[in-house]
Amino acid sequence: MLRLALSSIASLFLVPFSHDYYAPSPPGYIPGLHSHCSLIPPIAKPEFDARQAALATALYNLNASAYITEPSANSQYYANFSSINWKLSERPLLLIIRPRSISDSQIEPDVALLTPKFETLRASGLPVVPFKDSQTRYIQWAEEANPYASALAGLGISSDSEETLYVDNKIRKFIVDGLQQAGPKLRIASAPLEITSLRERKSPAELEILKCANEATVLAIRDVHLQLSAGLRESEVSIMLSSALGKAGLSNAGCLTLFGANAALPHGSGTDRVLGRDDFALFDCGGSLHGYVSDVTRTVALPDARLPNGHLHIWYAVKGAQAAALGAAKAGVLTRKPDEAARAFLQALGLKDYFTHRLGHALFARGSNDVMLTGHTFSNEPGVYIENKVGVRIEDCFYVDDAGNPRYLTERVGGPSETPWAP
Amino acid sequence: MLRLALSSIASLFLVPFSHDYYAPSPPGYIPGLHSHCSLIPPIAKPEFDARQAALATALYNLNASAYITEPSANSQYYANFSSINWKLSERPLLLIIRPRSISDSQIEPDVALLTPKFETLRASGLPVVPFKDSQTRYIQWAEEANPYASALAGLGISSDSEETLYVDNKIRKFIVDGLQQAGPKLRIASAPLEITSLRERKSPAELEILKCANEATVLAIRDVHLQLSAGLRESEVSIMLSSALGKAGLSNAGCLTLFGANAALPHGSGTDRVLGRDDFALFDCGGSLHGYVSDVTRTVALPDARLPNGHLHIWYAVKGAQAAALGAAKAGVLTRKPDEAARAFLQALGLKDYFTHRLGHALFARGSNDVMLTGHTFSNEPGVYIENKVGVRIEDCFYVDDAGNPRYLTERVGGPSETPWAP
Repeated sequence: MLRLALSSIASLFLVPFSHDYYAPSPPGYIPGLHSHCSLIPPIAKPEFDARQAALATALYNLNASAYITEPSANSQYYANFSSINWKLSERPLLLIIRPRSISDSQIEPDVALLTPKFETLRASGLPVVPFKDSQTRYIQWAEEANPYASALAGLGISSDSEETLYVDNKIRKFIVDGLQQAGPKLRIASAPLEITSLRERKSPAELEILKCANEATVLAIRDVHLQLSAGLRESEVSIMLSSALGKAGLSNAGCLTLFGANAALPHGSGTDRVLGRDDFALFDCGGSLHGYVSDVTRTVALPDARLPNGHLHIWYAVKGAQAAALGAAKAGVLTRKPDEAARAFLQALGLKDYFTHRLGHALFARGSNDVMLTGHTFSNEPGVYIENKVGVRIEDCFYVDDAGNPRYLTERVGGPSETPWAP
Repeated sequence: MLRLALSSIASLFLVPFSHDYYAPSPPGYIPGLHSHCSLIPPIAKPEFDARQAALATALYNLNASAYITEPSANSQYYANFSSINWKLSERPLLLIIRPRSISDSQIEPDVALLTPKFETLRASGLPVVPFKDSQTRYIQWAEEANPYASALAGLGISSDSEETLYVDNKIRKFIVDGLQQAGPKLRIASAPLEITSLRERKSPAELEILKCANEATVLAIRDVHLQLSAGLRESEVSIMLSSALGKAGLSNAGCLTLFGANAALPHGSGTDRVLGRDDFALFDCGGSLHGYVSDVTRTVALPDARLPNGHLHIWYAVKGAQAAALGAAKAGVLTRKPDEAARAFLQALGLKDYFTHRLGHALFARGSNDVMLTGHTFSNEPGVYIENKVGVRIEDCFYVDDAGNPRYLTERVGGPSETPWAP
């Protein structure tokens, strides 16, 4: 549906426009930043129902009584709210999903929210998706009560139960401590692979959201790139980028913004450098659409740049490494292969030692024997960082399509950067 | 030193100025928002040395090998950096402090930072304070390595050690899991009271910082209050407040900004309401100075307000409850007494059921037998919240002075709000 809508609007733009150093874009590329993703629906209720049912079945098969998470990516996946909707505080708010046996073959989820009692009204405003036509259950703990004892009581778990509870492994330790004190014999452990793997392969609806969020991010970077001039500060350009990402339809959006040698620190420096004609500007950007976060990095130059040739050489080396990594990706190969391919490419150019992190958001490094499967997504973000001199990183995320091939999430807006002047 | 400087500048303002509905202010109150805290020094190195030494001694006495925290309030307290300087990611960065026995009577801290290897340069830019003239030790973990095994190796803890490690109880569970896997026989537990209590009583330097941060917050709120008019949106006023707090000298500053019935949700609603003449505006503000965060709430009205009388009654009830709470505070009393006093005050007015949270940032509720000591600080923040109608909260933090009496951190700028027109 999106593609149809985009191409019909695109016909309005058949006259050439002035940004002619942009990468050639496939039909569907719309310049401008308005409402890029307004046609992309959020995850629909039946998909949430299916996620909750799959989790309940996995818990049942593991003989576990519940899955517990704070507001997080996992609460977003299972129940449509995250720490964006509910900031973590010293008062626990927990999503708790339990399996309920309906018949020998049917397991259904029981979805509950543990909330501070005085915040119940606000918690009831969270966009939590209940299972099918059931109601989300609110377990309240009053300020004078123990929240963890309230949770166990609300779930019908006795304080001397020996049941197993699985928690999101990003949960804060004091919550695990509190649950363990309320039920000393409970077995409380981080969720195992059978649970964490449920989220790994993306559905068509998830991919549409991820594509649009990443497209909007590229469009916003391009828009700001056209407004750059020597003399701007990192902080000023960072604000321009946040604003552009917001206009493009993303929320909670922003970019790590690093000029010149500051970009040699992969995650930033803290100074507020002024952009010069001999500098690259590195933007590592992300923004949220329906709870899914984009991740795009571009390293760009000014139109009237006077870059050292060596720096331009590095830029193209990184671009080559990104292409090499994509070439090594395919359903069935080990997930570490793209990283190895990028590394080999940079080694041949004598730059391997300056590629100091791994590809794939630590995912490629998770285990050396993980296999790439259809629906998996990965970040392809090689970089070269030479301290006190120059830093270049280019990042596009890709997914493995149904035919087993890697496809950039940004491909509908032209995919990776072509040159430092065509992000 | 600050007080001298303030009173000499204050003499410049002896002519009456137009904001005459401000609460009477003691000498030293400066209207205006510039550099309010520029004369307040950060915590000095000898104080950091003493904190680290006290922690090392406590660890030694507990027969523990190390204290471990992610960037947090605890890393700020012991080593001068927090999640403001280093955002949490999936890659662990840990502050690790170990006790080292110098002689029978002397224990010294060994301060180390576990950092991702490719981020070492950035980590070395953190404002970490080393112990005395020692150097902070950086333990690096390479992307292909296990960070937790690297940590133990760097600390000289063998993988079959049975030593005790204490962690900040806000640490994420996967870090505890990783340490436990790297040393299966280690005893890893949340830091006990002997450690957590080290931070509880504030030093004179800490109190000076906290006072100035809270003063600047009050000044910023007063400044924005003068600019309010009917028709402004919550989001607009929120930006004005952030800007004013920044001008007043605070960083990472902002306010929960709620108009009318939205303020009946103690932590906010998510709509973007327009301010009306019949509305209160509630601002719950905080900003950071040298790593210490202010916390002030004001509920204000427009100059040409047409408030329902019942709402004004509630405002004065909350103000009375705040005064009652302060009156119950004193060194040696149970920390829950102020909360009980505020509750009793509101009960007499038939409003107790609308005071839905506790005073003191859950601190009063921590244990019913905690005792108030000199140097303790508490938030005094009663509120009345009537759903779909009105919400009022007034918050000033106080400390217990050397004579055992409660003193508002905001007292040098006049302390609590006098009326909805004199915040």
